[in-house]
Amino acid sequence: MEPGDEESSKTIGKKAAKKEAAKQEKLRRRQAAALASAASSLTVEEEDPLAANYGNVPLVDLQSNEEADLSEWTRVGDLNEGLKDKTVLISGRAQTTRAVGKNMAFVVVRQKGFTVQCVVTVQPEVVSRQMVKFVAALSRESIIEVQGVISVPSVPIKGTTQQVEVQVRKLHCISKALPTLPINLEDAARSEKEIEEALQAGEQLVRVNQDTRLNYRVLDMRTPANQGIFHIQSQIGSIFRTFLKSEDFREIHTPKLIAGSSEGGSAVFKLDYKGQAACLAQSPQLHKQMAICGDFERVFEIGPVFRAEDSYTHRHLCEFVGLDVEMEIKRHYFEVMDIVDRLFVSIFDYLNENCKKELEAIRRQYPFEPLKEAGVEVHPHGDLNTEAGKEVKLAAKRVMCESKKEIGAASSTVMALNWCTWAGPTSGIRADAQQLVSELIPNNAFFVQEAGVEVDPFGDLNTEAERKLGQLVLEKYGTEFYILHRYPLAVRPFYPKPCYEDAKYSNSFDVFIRGEEIISGAQRIHVPELLEERAKACGIDVNTISTYIDAFRYGAPPHGGFGVGLERVVMLFCGLNNIRKTSLFPRDPLRLAP
Amino acid sequence: MEPGDEESSKTIGKKAAKKEAAKQEKLRRRQAAALASAASSLTVEEEDPLAANYGNVPLVDLQSNEEADLSEWTRVGDLNEGLKDKTVLISGRAQTTRAVGKNMAFVVVRQKGFTVQCVVTVQPEVVSRQMVKFVAALSRESIIEVQGVISVPSVPIKGTTQQVEVQVRKLHCISKALPTLPINLEDAARSEKEIEEALQAGEQLVRVNQDTRLNYRVLDMRTPANQGIFHIQSQIGSIFRTFLKSEDFREIHTPKLIAGSSEGGSAVFKLDYKGQAACLAQSPQLHKQMAICGDFERVFEIGPVFRAEDSYTHRHLCEFVGLDVEMEIKRHYFEVMDIVDRLFVSIFDYLNENCKKELEAIRRQYPFEPLKEAGVEVHPHGDLNTEAGKEVKLAAKRVMCESKKEIGAASSTVMALNWCTWAGPTSGIRADAQQLVSELIPNNAFFVQEAGVEVDPFGDLNTEAERKLGQLVLEKYGTEFYILHRYPLAVRPFYPKPCYEDAKYSNSFDVFIRGEEIISGAQRIHVPELLEERAKACGIDVNTISTYIDAFRYGAPPHGGFGVGLERVVMLFCGLNNIRKTSLFPRDPLRLAP
Repeated sequence: MEPGDEESSKTIGKKAAKKEAAKQEKLRRRQAAALASAASSLTVEEEDPLAANYGNVPLVDLQSNEEADLSEWTRVGDLNEGLKDKTVLISGRAQTTRAVGKNMAFVVVRQKGFTVQCVVTVQPEVVSRQMVKFVAALSRESIIEVQGVISVPSVPIKGTTQQVEVQVRKLHCISKALPTLPINLEDAARSEKEIEEALQAGEQLVRVNQDTRLNYRVLDMRTPANQGIFHIQSQIGSIFRTFLKSEDFREIHTPKLIAGSSEGGSAVFKLDYKGQAACLAQSPQLHKQMAICGDFERVFEIGPVFRAEDSYTHRHLCEFVGLDVEMEIKRHYFEVMDIVDRLFVSIFDYLNENCKKELEAIRRQYPFEPLKEAGVEVHPHGDLNTEAGKEVKLAAKRVMCESKKEIGAASSTVMALNWCTWAGPTSGIRADAQQLVSELIPNNAFFVQEAGVEVDPFGDLNTEAERKLGQLVLEKYGTEFYILHRYPLAVRPFYPKPCYEDAKYSNSFDVFIRGEEIISGAQRIHVPELLEERAKACGIDVNTISTYIDAFRYGAPPHGGFGVGLERVVMLFCGLNNIRKTSLFPRDPLRLAP
Repeated sequence: MEPGDEESSKTIGKKAAKKEAAKQEKLRRRQAAALASAASSLTVEEEDPLAANYGNVPLVDLQSNEEADLSEWTRVGDLNEGLKDKTVLISGRAQTTRAVGKNMAFVVVRQKGFTVQCVVTVQPEVVSRQMVKFVAALSRESIIEVQGVISVPSVPIKGTTQQVEVQVRKLHCISKALPTLPINLEDAARSEKEIEEALQAGEQLVRVNQDTRLNYRVLDMRTPANQGIFHIQSQIGSIFRTFLKSEDFREIHTPKLIAGSSEGGSAVFKLDYKGQAACLAQSPQLHKQMAICGDFERVFEIGPVFRAEDSYTHRHLCEFVGLDVEMEIKRHYFEVMDIVDRLFVSIFDYLNENCKKELEAIRRQYPFEPLKEAGVEVHPHGDLNTEAGKEVKLAAKRVMCESKKEIGAASSTVMALNWCTWAGPTSGIRADAQQLVSELIPNNAFFVQEAGVEVDPFGDLNTEAERKLGQLVLEKYGTEFYILHRYPLAVRPFYPKPCYEDAKYSNSFDVFIRGEEIISGAQRIHVPELLEERAKACGIDVNTISTYIDAFRYGAPPHGGFGVGLERVVMLFCGLNNIRKTSLFPRDPLRLAP
């Protein structure tokens, strides 16, 4: 963990957990009382001849012997004026209910983000006063089924997505929610801006904090923003696979239970495996490289990776989804960067074109600017063997040469020079790439003098320095998506190939979005003797990784690859401030539930 | 573990491990000797003016400053007569080398399963005697790059896939393999039949056993059968996703690190999570259901699942890839079975149509009959809202009714009756489905009397009974793919819904291929009180799963789902005899490496 990264200390975390436990106990008592009171109000006071038209469906009826004809149901999102006077059957959640006197009630039904207003009015032979009472007393978020006739009101309906109403004839509750929920959906869906504006108008609205959201994640997940976030997450995985399959990559699954200590370091979860010492893989690194040694040529994997780090930052998790790629190369690690580049252009283009509704839902609660990626127009599924592609490669080469010329002049400001920046077709840097090299000298001086950030030329960039670099690149080149390569060898793991003309550097790169790292990649060492030497130099017991090193003794092609954190991609593409927002059930040093 | 499942005891396993270690030590010594001898034979004896045309490429040259022009390379699989007299650059492995006198050598180059013969002949100004010697001494499986001119021999070339030759002008070794490999590829690629036939002809060929293969997996992976197996595995994941996405399922990622004891039972891997007791998820069961409570409606996940079982069978692993599905239903768990059915028809059809080459490669080493799935023609991406679909559903309903009528007549032979069998459109059972019910009575008698298998009517089917059932279904209905449902409640976990008219049974099902289970599924309990009661009855400490049970208190739709083991699907579709053949780096109680 970078010192500057820390958001909260462990002590604060434990205090918060205690406070939360007390809060939950209080809530449980409140819920029990509300449940008892609700139950009494629902007692059947008198016999109702229309009782068959409403009520709670007993569990046994939810699996009748007869299969349901699924075509009888209409989805809420499909309700429209064309269905006027038709009888429909819908299901969903009772989002809100409202009684108007004793003869009328409204219930808004929500299904997959779409909402419709249902009207229950006393009518002979159809709707009784008891039915109106039943509907008005429904707890929010209960699952209901409604049969009714579609009507089209003369004035627009506020607060629902569908512009028709359902005149209810039957309404049954399939699953009752607790009368008092730990968080209300409208509170959970509120933007910070709304809260601020209300406050200025003298009204205090409920703000649901991140921890409470995660404690009641199944409720939090129902907000439009969260439905959007996890749709985006699902789509990214999908485009990742589709793109790589189209480039002849094979999907693999490597073991998460491994002997020894993964890639070294202390940040591993250890466990006993049938009497053997084992740990959880920190990444599929070793095994994806072994797949390359096994003639798989190009592989990718999507799977969990485990980091036992004590990081309490907005961007670290103890378990996250790794998108991993490994591929044979002929000569140069730019071959890997080409794939990174085209892959992410595909992903961003797809999201911008096909997920407008979801991005808008996220933006309403968490406002963000679209990712800036000015540059060459590249067809997401086209090849780079075009003028654009050549230009990019030329620009990259120029930066490489430029940087090498400067290596002699080592000083405390040299770091940025050696870590020359290369930008893909999304960045618009192309012809200007050379400039960046010289721009980075004053930039590094800026780190030291103005931002007070000490940068070791052979050390890593900390979060603060990364952010400053991101600002500089954005100002100068109008892009928030760029690649920084040739990292100092000392800050990388043991397996990247050292630079051939200066072993203080490595054939490695990181990719940044909005000034934060999302991808790490490199050319790997494919010579077993050098690999062994580097592992030892990094303090790794080579006996624990002997099967990995041996894999290179049977002929190993030059290769490289990269790893991406799925949650980080979602977080940074959507400009969110916390990675816990993009993990369905996040795991950090203090959170192991739900 | 079923008692009948055991293939080898733990003791035998440990003995084998010792023996293997001794074997490896011997091998290492042999390799060192061979390496020394090979090195001496490669010593440059005299200056060679043509030395630039061959040799070992030093590591530094594998990342030149200049990016390679990838378009210069031709893939081995693309070499054909149309390239006659053209100069090509290829790369791949030196599969075999052979010297013919001092002036000529052959080397077969293999790339991604394709092979081509390269001819090195002494030629003034191009190929020296030393170059021929260098090529002849190349160790098998080394990675080489070859430049040469395509020629078309007048007679067909045996033993290579490409019917052209490369007249070599330059040949460089990129990565040397050890001169003596722990397993030879031709041994590893040999079928049992070849070994038997050779034996009858008096020749003893090397048989590489499964354990040795796994110890040197990176070599074993290179055989045509294994390239085929892992291509099939990759494709299954792909079709699984594509099909479910087309049915509006969302891909999710649930945590593998969980508090408490997963779904109960002792077969969990435990670990310390920052001071908290944690374990590895035995499946995404609890979290995928919580995603349904969070309004995700239809979800799937592909990810590792962990089972700490002491199973040494041909079909159990301690870590495997779970394909998991969960979905809202309206009334009946047949809605889930419909998805299972159409999904697997899609998968099988796709593999049969698009992976012919890979299936053939597997079959050559491990002969198998194509999966029998006679039945209705159903378009893999079409809907079941057709006559075919209706027929299937009707057949299923008939079996349900039939079975219920018989429930009164409980006896030791009733099991098969209650576990009525339903078959999808692939099975051809449709109209005959009713028959199976009565056929299963003598079948169960057969288990007890002829096969000597005692079957408890409320117990589980053991492997032997499953196999017998598979035989019966195949004989009677000509299908090896079928579903058995309404399992006794006692043999299922705590979360499936008990049958509404008889709680001794459950709304659950298993799917079988070739008499072995590949899928388990069920309708789930969505009522928190009942769920709590069932968990307690199954001996689970409900405090450890409180966030899961609480998820159902905020309104939960009826839902169901299923889980599939990816490795089992590959194994059974391809009729393989061991699940270790379909896991890239398998984990069993004795194996944690490579």
